[in-house]
Amino acid sequence: MDIKGKHYCSIWLNDNERTVGVLDQKLLPHKIKKLTLKTWKEVVSAISDMTVRGAPLIGVAGACGLALATNEEVGRKYLIGVAEKLCETRPTAINLRWAVNRELEAILEVSKNKRKKVAWKEARNILRSELLMSGNIGKQAAKIIFSLYEELGRSVGILTHCNAGWLATVDWGTATAGIYVAYNQGVPVHVYADETRPRLQGAMTAWELSSHGVPVELIADNAAGFLMKNGLVDMVIVGADRIASNGDTANKIGTYMKALAAKDNGIPFYVAAPSSTFDWNLEKGELIPIEERDGVEVRQVKGLTDSGQMETVWITEPGQLVRNPAFDVTPSKLITAFITDKGIFAPEEIYKLKELSDD
Amino acid sequence: MDIKGKHYCSIWLNDNERTVGVLDQKLLPHKIKKLTLKTWKEVVSAISDMTVRGAPLIGVAGACGLALATNEEVGRKYLIGVAEKLCETRPTAINLRWAVNRELEAILEVSKNKRKKVAWKEARNILRSELLMSGNIGKQAAKIIFSLYEELGRSVGILTHCNAGWLATVDWGTATAGIYVAYNQGVPVHVYADETRPRLQGAMTAWELSSHGVPVELIADNAAGFLMKNGLVDMVIVGADRIASNGDTANKIGTYMKALAAKDNGIPFYVAAPSSTFDWNLEKGELIPIEERDGVEVRQVKGLTDSGQMETVWITEPGQLVRNPAFDVTPSKLITAFITDKGIFAPEEIYKLKELSDD
Repeated sequence: MDIKGKHYCSIWLNDNERTVGVLDQKLLPHKIKKLTLKTWKEVVSAISDMTVRGAPLIGVAGACGLALATNEEVGRKYLIGVAEKLCETRPTAINLRWAVNRELEAILEVSKNKRKKVAWKEARNILRSELLMSGNIGKQAAKIIFSLYEELGRSVGILTHCNAGWLATVDWGTATAGIYVAYNQGVPVHVYADETRPRLQGAMTAWELSSHGVPVELIADNAAGFLMKNGLVDMVIVGADRIASNGDTANKIGTYMKALAAKDNGIPFYVAAPSSTFDWNLEKGELIPIEERDGVEVRQVKGLTDSGQMETVWITEPGQLVRNPAFDVTPSKLITAFITDKGIFAPEEIYKLKELSDD
Repeated sequence: MDIKGKHYCSIWLNDNERTVGVLDQKLLPHKIKKLTLKTWKEVVSAISDMTVRGAPLIGVAGACGLALATNEEVGRKYLIGVAEKLCETRPTAINLRWAVNRELEAILEVSKNKRKKVAWKEARNILRSELLMSGNIGKQAAKIIFSLYEELGRSVGILTHCNAGWLATVDWGTATAGIYVAYNQGVPVHVYADETRPRLQGAMTAWELSSHGVPVELIADNAAGFLMKNGLVDMVIVGADRIASNGDTANKIGTYMKALAAKDNGIPFYVAAPSSTFDWNLEKGELIPIEERDGVEVRQVKGLTDSGQMETVWITEPGQLVRNPAFDVTPSKLITAFITDKGIFAPEEIYKLKELSDD
């Protein structure tokens, strides 16, 4: 989407498809800096330290990492080893495994002398199909926003959590895709973005929506329930990192409590995700592995000083004990519907999506 | 309570009861700095900018502000004007109005030449009765913690929100009072403290409990639901800023969603508060005025740099639109019981507390 009128994507292929370009998301929303990733090890670092983040985007980045590996070597054992290292960077999101496996299969299907070429072609395909998926999700979600607008006859209040925006995909986003489509079509919307501690990805959501022109207010995570109870939110829409076959959904920590608040206030709660986010092999949410990240993310906050320097401040004593689970699981009973690239499905209908995916 | 073995209170009378001593809570948990408040205007500033915060403490501080005013003038009209200014500093907490009115009544009951003396005596009484109330709450709450310990046969997991600790009262706290009493009696407890954005009062809770020796882990507000769902929390205990006569409870923003998560997981949810927190004139929670504070509290975070300087960092662009409600209302249906200085009451029994208070 646009930053002050100029179009950006979160990831792209560089140097005639020999390197990978990304935005350094650790500096956002303060500074826009493009990085060039030249080796698969740089991709591993970038995913681990969240220079590149967002379930769909780390899938694309993982596939690109494997393509970068073929610049160096194309042996089966080596590539399988690289794929494993890439998948281990973040345990919760399924898109990463899905994309890396798709890339690996495509590469290993052909003989050694063709692997590098196929690897870059497949990376490009995965990037493009991710873009297409977001676009399709946007069309589906915009229908819901538009019908709410027709029903209410006023601006539609939309709450979102974390950043499931274009920064978390290649473009458009998942949760935000419908917002951008609706906004571009002139449907009045007003977004509330949870700031999403500990890593404050909501500040990125507020920034990317503002930069494109969409009206948005940032709130502390604690304020979501208050806004819902006070009639300011007409729908909640979030992304997902992994969806079990019963519809239980792992997403950024805190999503579960927003879903409870939506339920308590009769507000529809939507999960927007590409079909690659569904893990049909997992029976239920309790089986989704939940990443616990370094406690320093809770103890510290990073931002910009008045003099324009990036600075990290301690909000606790350095030795304060903390817990830092990065995701939680929202039970399917709290979810109104899944907005996917293949249509909109209530939790009890997602078997239909599975059938479509099996085709 | 103790900070590294040395006993502190959050407020005290100084200079033979001519000035008021407080801890500068804006610097906690990073620096311990005592301040002397010498005029009622300094009290107004200290309450407004949250140098002094916490519903019971600002009540005591408000009464002390009126006592300071009598150092200057003792006319009825003047003192009524000062009382109004003190009450206007924070709209939500009822304790402030309760304490300032009690102080004002005591002063105006006597002739001018006795007012200053009576004012300081009543301020001392209010400070002491607040201390006594916290102590009594602690004894009541400790009974609940002890019976949970007997039932579970292991450390009791307790989640709390914001800082309803000794820093928010004179000593002991409200939500924390029972925790301190239980800990001092050797009952094993493990506290999870929500950090409580935007102002991060949870970092103070973690600090004050740690400083006294109580095991505590700080969490992002978003993580509370995850911990509850994963069996780590046996009870939730929070403070209150105002409780309507039907039991609906205004407390720090975010309390409502923690109460929803407790309900969804069958975890008891307690509100610990002195009886002065009940506003018997208010029928229900919707009528409690909710303070919206400056958006800069959301846009910025204050902390300590690695080099030990207090620094404020922007987490958004300076112009980012935000909403910043400081409190929300938890409906009484989500509250297991109120732990007060006069006993423990389920929401449907609080008429008994009213009868006791009317006596």
